[in-house]
Amino acid sequence: MPKYRIVIEYDGRPFVGWQRQDNGLGVQHVLELAAGQLTEAPVTVYGAGRTDAGVHASGQVAHLHLDRDMTAPKLMAALNAHLKPHPVAVVDAALADEDFHARFSAIERTYLYRIVNRTAPLTFDLGLAWRVPEKLDAAAMDRAGKVLLGKHDFTTFRASQCQAKSALKTLDQLDVVRRDDQIYVHARARSFLHHQVRNMVGTLRLVGCGKWTDVDVRDALLAKDRRRGGPTAPPDGLYLTSVGY
Amino acid sequence: MPKYRIVIEYDGRPFVGWQRQDNGLGVQHVLELAAGQLTEAPVTVYGAGRTDAGVHASGQVAHLHLDRDMTAPKLMAALNAHLKPHPVAVVDAALADEDFHARFSAIERTYLYRIVNRTAPLTFDLGLAWRVPEKLDAAAMDRAGKVLLGKHDFTTFRASQCQAKSALKTLDQLDVVRRDDQIYVHARARSFLHHQVRNMVGTLRLVGCGKWTDVDVRDALLAKDRRRGGPTAPPDGLYLTSVGY
Repeated sequence: MPKYRIVIEYDGRPFVGWQRQDNGLGVQHVLELAAGQLTEAPVTVYGAGRTDAGVHASGQVAHLHLDRDMTAPKLMAALNAHLKPHPVAVVDAALADEDFHARFSAIERTYLYRIVNRTAPLTFDLGLAWRVPEKLDAAAMDRAGKVLLGKHDFTTFRASQCQAKSALKTLDQLDVVRRDDQIYVHARARSFLHHQVRNMVGTLRLVGCGKWTDVDVRDALLAKDRRRGGPTAPPDGLYLTSVGY
Repeated sequence: MPKYRIVIEYDGRPFVGWQRQDNGLGVQHVLELAAGQLTEAPVTVYGAGRTDAGVHASGQVAHLHLDRDMTAPKLMAALNAHLKPHPVAVVDAALADEDFHARFSAIERTYLYRIVNRTAPLTFDLGLAWRVPEKLDAAAMDRAGKVLLGKHDFTTFRASQCQAKSALKTLDQLDVVRRDDQIYVHARARSFLHHQVRNMVGTLRLVGCGKWTDVDVRDALLAKDRRRGGPTAPPDGLYLTSVGY
């Protein structure tokens, strides 16, 4: 039973999220159906990050076993053929060691959050970015984001339904950069709490439009109270871009 | 009757092209219906470039008259409200001089052609870029593109249905740059023949995958024969990005 590690890109718009669920189509399910076309027995696909409904990925990582030998490039081509017409693509594949686990072996996750800062509605980016009409000060957002770097109790930025045992996380990167009317938020950590990136982005937006300062962000963090954080940014702008091992 | 100049972004996927046509919805028609909601009489919207079916724009320019006074920001907001749910947005608006004509006053058009150079199918970029699976040498494409700069008879790169009186055009820019698996072709001229950018890109692809050299491109240009040029690249990757006056 060879084991494979695959890198997956998907448009999250039509999905209930990464995970198989009863209320709609999950990306995991679509991949399992595609992989099941190549084998006798059903295949389970284990992902590194359980992205929410409407969240995208350019570098989700997963592992799976097949009951037959197949080269990694051939697996990639076969999966992509069976993934049609879903907006899910395997962009890389490799044989994996038997002890590799997409989720538990991961030591780093990187997310991108895309804001389009303009008054006009979105066209090609609809569902693929968060449109914020008020002019945002990206430099102020970047400075305020630095307050969150390091090891903290991130309860203020944690969804109430988050299942993690501890809210203690180490945030390694939180950069905010503007290019024309696009604002990119880059976040990197060993792991994140549920909704942590979206809650941090929703809070930084308050800084960007001048309602909050970095002192307010620090006070919110220290309060360890979700009600003290900013609103949750929509899933539209969030992309899981890479997983490190 | 105030005259306005508007800048328009659209996702070309659902449209038969810019122009009003009998066989489906044109972007022009959608804009005229939106503008007609603001006036007593029907409104005609004149665009700078008649993009084809499936071609996109981030900076199409048009002009229109209204039968009432309205500030430009208010016009922009009102048009955007009436353009829903079409993937068309007015991203800028200004009062225009009475002698301004979006098409005839234009002295420069800039297009972007986006190639995604990978074997995996597209997900969020489906219909928004051309996927080319064979590895392309973007530097070779860039060098070969320089052969086409300047004033030439572009018959080799002109659609048979092109209505221009002359095939003589001056190409001011043709740059090919790679960023990871994305290849961007930037083309700028006073005006282009029908399908000229797509035919140039389809030809440069032959150079990128090593089938053609820049000498072949020069020979094709000098032949002044459409059958000597490369195939037409699909509309998916083409964007009208700006119009200069």
